[in-house]
Amino acid sequence: MTEPSAAPLDLGAIRELIRAEEDEAAELLHLTANETVLSPFARSVLASDLGTRYLLEHLDMRQDSPSRLNNLLYRGLDRVNRIERSATEVCRRLFGGEYAEFRCLSGLHAMQTTFAALTRPGDKIMRISTKDGGHFLTELICRGFGRRSCTYAFRDISEIDLAATEKIFREERPSLLYIDAMNYLFPFPVRELKEIAGDVPLIYDASHTLGLIAGGRFQSPLAEGADILQANTHKTFFGPQKGLIVGRDRGPMERIGYTLSNGMVSSQHTASTLALFVALHEMYVVGEEYADRVLRNAKRLATALDRLGVPVLAKDRGFTANHMFFVDTRPLGGGPPLLERLLAAGISVNRGVAFEHVDALRFGVQEITRRGADEADMDLVAGWVAGILLGTAEPDDVRPQVREFLGRHSGIHFTGDAAPAPRRKPPERSAFRPSRRWAEMTLEREPIDHSAHRTVLAHAKELGRLGGEFAHQTDSAGNVSFSAGGRLYVSASGAYIKDLADDDFVLVEGGGDGVLHCRGAGPASVEAYLHHLLAERFGAAYVVHNHYIPDAELTRLGVLVIDPQEYGSIALATAVAKAAEDAKKIYVRRHGLVFWSESFTEIRDLVTGTAAATT
Amino acid sequence: MTEPSAAPLDLGAIRELIRAEEDEAAELLHLTANETVLSPFARSVLASDLGTRYLLEHLDMRQDSPSRLNNLLYRGLDRVNRIERSATEVCRRLFGGEYAEFRCLSGLHAMQTTFAALTRPGDKIMRISTKDGGHFLTELICRGFGRRSCTYAFRDISEIDLAATEKIFREERPSLLYIDAMNYLFPFPVRELKEIAGDVPLIYDASHTLGLIAGGRFQSPLAEGADILQANTHKTFFGPQKGLIVGRDRGPMERIGYTLSNGMVSSQHTASTLALFVALHEMYVVGEEYADRVLRNAKRLATALDRLGVPVLAKDRGFTANHMFFVDTRPLGGGPPLLERLLAAGISVNRGVAFEHVDALRFGVQEITRRGADEADMDLVAGWVAGILLGTAEPDDVRPQVREFLGRHSGIHFTGDAAPAPRRKPPERSAFRPSRRWAEMTLEREPIDHSAHRTVLAHAKELGRLGGEFAHQTDSAGNVSFSAGGRLYVSASGAYIKDLADDDFVLVEGGGDGVLHCRGAGPASVEAYLHHLLAERFGAAYVVHNHYIPDAELTRLGVLVIDPQEYGSIALATAVAKAAEDAKKIYVRRHGLVFWSESFTEIRDLVTGTAAATT
Repeated sequence: MTEPSAAPLDLGAIRELIRAEEDEAAELLHLTANETVLSPFARSVLASDLGTRYLLEHLDMRQDSPSRLNNLLYRGLDRVNRIERSATEVCRRLFGGEYAEFRCLSGLHAMQTTFAALTRPGDKIMRISTKDGGHFLTELICRGFGRRSCTYAFRDISEIDLAATEKIFREERPSLLYIDAMNYLFPFPVRELKEIAGDVPLIYDASHTLGLIAGGRFQSPLAEGADILQANTHKTFFGPQKGLIVGRDRGPMERIGYTLSNGMVSSQHTASTLALFVALHEMYVVGEEYADRVLRNAKRLATALDRLGVPVLAKDRGFTANHMFFVDTRPLGGGPPLLERLLAAGISVNRGVAFEHVDALRFGVQEITRRGADEADMDLVAGWVAGILLGTAEPDDVRPQVREFLGRHSGIHFTGDAAPAPRRKPPERSAFRPSRRWAEMTLEREPIDHSAHRTVLAHAKELGRLGGEFAHQTDSAGNVSFSAGGRLYVSASGAYIKDLADDDFVLVEGGGDGVLHCRGAGPASVEAYLHHLLAERFGAAYVVHNHYIPDAELTRLGVLVIDPQEYGSIALATAVAKAAEDAKKIYVRRHGLVFWSESFTEIRDLVTGTAAATT
Repeated sequence: MTEPSAAPLDLGAIRELIRAEEDEAAELLHLTANETVLSPFARSVLASDLGTRYLLEHLDMRQDSPSRLNNLLYRGLDRVNRIERSATEVCRRLFGGEYAEFRCLSGLHAMQTTFAALTRPGDKIMRISTKDGGHFLTELICRGFGRRSCTYAFRDISEIDLAATEKIFREERPSLLYIDAMNYLFPFPVRELKEIAGDVPLIYDASHTLGLIAGGRFQSPLAEGADILQANTHKTFFGPQKGLIVGRDRGPMERIGYTLSNGMVSSQHTASTLALFVALHEMYVVGEEYADRVLRNAKRLATALDRLGVPVLAKDRGFTANHMFFVDTRPLGGGPPLLERLLAAGISVNRGVAFEHVDALRFGVQEITRRGADEADMDLVAGWVAGILLGTAEPDDVRPQVREFLGRHSGIHFTGDAAPAPRRKPPERSAFRPSRRWAEMTLEREPIDHSAHRTVLAHAKELGRLGGEFAHQTDSAGNVSFSAGGRLYVSASGAYIKDLADDDFVLVEGGGDGVLHCRGAGPASVEAYLHHLLAERFGAAYVVHNHYIPDAELTRLGVLVIDPQEYGSIALATAVAKAAEDAKKIYVRRHGLVFWSESFTEIRDLVTGTAAATT
């Protein structure tokens, strides 16, 4: 919330202010540990026209989205989905996780998502205390979500005391271990912590070191035992301001996907998602080389400062094993005035109280590394910084040298473009034509006479009621069909299955090749083709399909689980029909249950038995 | 979560895919109701270098951010803050709200924020049922936050039954009224609902109609009685994918700001925030004309379709009073195949089951309006759409006409650039030099001998303990000082006030003009200048400053409330010193409490009395 100005600025003034702010940023040497610089490609994508388009469609677990269950249909961005699959493969190769979620809007949003997905109100989360470098918002997020928290024991900066932590773990019994450091220098003992944690999930927030992990130069949390790796994507990872979650196992990642779909996010933000995909692929090409240079530069700058008499923390352990290090300002007169002097010299850093009482300046070299700076450059930078901090140089004298340096380092390196770019082919401008995804349905509007089959009709209504009352359904969505007199009747589009009326049933006849001819008061369910296939191929007398998505273990439900397909599509109907060769109780993953039988009593028992097992 | 592809794509392939997706989008006539198109200026801002910079500083309520309480300091983006103040004034003029929050990342994020800020777990929220056009995620968000919900009674599409709703309100006793429509055509009776609600807050989510409200052409929720107006900013409002909250009164907006700062968001996403500012200012210039044209186009397109025999909902009420309308597909054979046929003709719309059983296509004209389409164009569009929906035209025949039309409407109108743009002045490249914000502190490192004033030292420690134990403090941050023998001793930077040791006190001497000379084991608190002023000007023997932020009513605490100032700044110290002319108990809004006195017993009573009133 802000106080307004007296009158609005005009657009020209805003343009000038933004330009001046950009100019100021361009004249600074950024040694903050938490910012980055994008490649020209990633930056250009942020301004793509696609940024105004909705991206709600298709992929795997997003099938559980209530927007799908409410039958909201969009055009979809197929090529973006192709890039997403590739980005998932990149995550697999860089981070060792089989599953990735790109929908989180920020690192904090990823934090909220995993807390909500993997713990329950009242649960306790083990986190890093702020005095040991933990994120300043973790405790507040825990509180906001009704979770409690406890903290690890630390022996020294960035060094967990495992024995003491194990004792705390036994006493406090947290249901989640969370590594959420914002000030740290060395890898965490993930393997040992996971050994302590056992079945309790361990989440590693790599917001600071994601780029180094991607480059294989810090630690590999998922390989070492973490269940989830999450991060914002704009510190050592040179992506947009956004969040990322990568996981090893399907179970927790399904819960995370479900949580995201059910109230944490609606549409992906298309442009920043695309920019993240670009940055991931760049990292895939240049990550090792980049991360290597970052580590060498960080160590060199810290070492050079130390030699010049600047008090750098953790000297006995080589200052740092990542991109950041800390200068202790206590012998130098305190952080804020030093921050101000550095800024006057054109050098930007963070100041914070870190590691209990240390009034520290935090330095990071990831950005100047991507601007091409090498170890010799670090010696130059160290000279300026030391002069300012120790009072042996004045900002006005340093500033021109900084500016000259920036002029020499205005380009972006490590973009993956070093090899000659592939020649651009002219875009296939006329290639677009959507393939057939849904069955085509004709409709003759006339009331259906159900008098010849009142009993089966009543059976179908009862099945609708039973299938519509599963917990956690949205508006009891789904569809029901019965066959009578050799003809198929399917519930109408938009009808709520738990309360079906006579004229909610539409007569449906297959016309071959994905075409259905219908008669009734309104159009049949878009999933009518599924019912048609089951009736035609297996002689199903009744089919019940609801949109219940099991929260519990599926094994307990005794259903055949198949992969998701697009809602209402021909592909979905075909997949279910194939599964019906082996089972009468089928779960289309992240979508819903399908029951079919030749007999009423059998299908009724299947539905009620499953419902009982789920409650 | 997604399934990976076999191997990562190379960067060239990604470039091609994005280009092809952009080309496809450019070849479609977008009649979706939920997308928009940005001006070239707003789009360019999304790719600004500033997008990688942190924006955590300064403004008003953000002073309560835990990042400030933990003394994290950044450079800050002063000019962006100036633009934000102007944008707040624009919100005041467009929406009639005194306060604005620009930090929400999305409309859903705004929803979560206001739910968390204005209700408590177990509370009931009155929302619009999905069958009456409510948002499909509201109920799930309520559940996720541990809130219950009830729904309004509706008489017809977009028409609330007030008498029945009042009855529900009396019976259900919701603690928040929320208008969360995603499918609607006419204004809601905000005035009448607020009359029913009384003191219960009413939130209006204007995600769809924000641009029309800004243009003064739909309804004016805040003027009509809503407490909060919130929205995503990319439907009729031509902004980036982002969220906005505007409020009438300080109380709820302070709670919202506090909620955001304490676990809902850390850094603003700088680029999309800037793009929102740009769009707000554009709307300020052209909003009325734009909204007017949107309404006329929507009505014209719906009317023309109706005349051509397409069943458009709400004919008896003139089809629509906003940018969208609905075609009932039930007489036409159902939505999905029609959606597919329209897409094949190059026309993009949404399909959904709206208003109970209606399988509908949703049309919106806001995007083609911004591309310059007028009422004559609507007649053309109606001809194509009717042909496709009624089966009198084939997609392949319509598509070339659509393409030709798009060629004539490729520009963006309503940008505020119609008047000649002001001549750009060359940027003042050398103007940057930060002003002095913090006192300069020198430090002589030597232990302080406290033996001459052991009693007052013990008093100060006790005051630290008392002030450090207020609920809801972060790590008991704050600072304490005492005067003895005519000299001032202030607690050290980073010391936790509830557990102060002897050498946590630093001797501080003022040197005039914002300079302090210190002696001690480490630097004094960055707020030492505040203590210095109170001791020097008022002879304060003790000063206690903690970072407790009252959740409760301040009147009950009996403190003098002053406006926030930047953490640790000279401006803060000066403002507190001014307030000390009138009070010994001062609350710096969103920052913390300051107590001072010449006597120990008086200040102890002030601190303990206030603590008692807060619990």
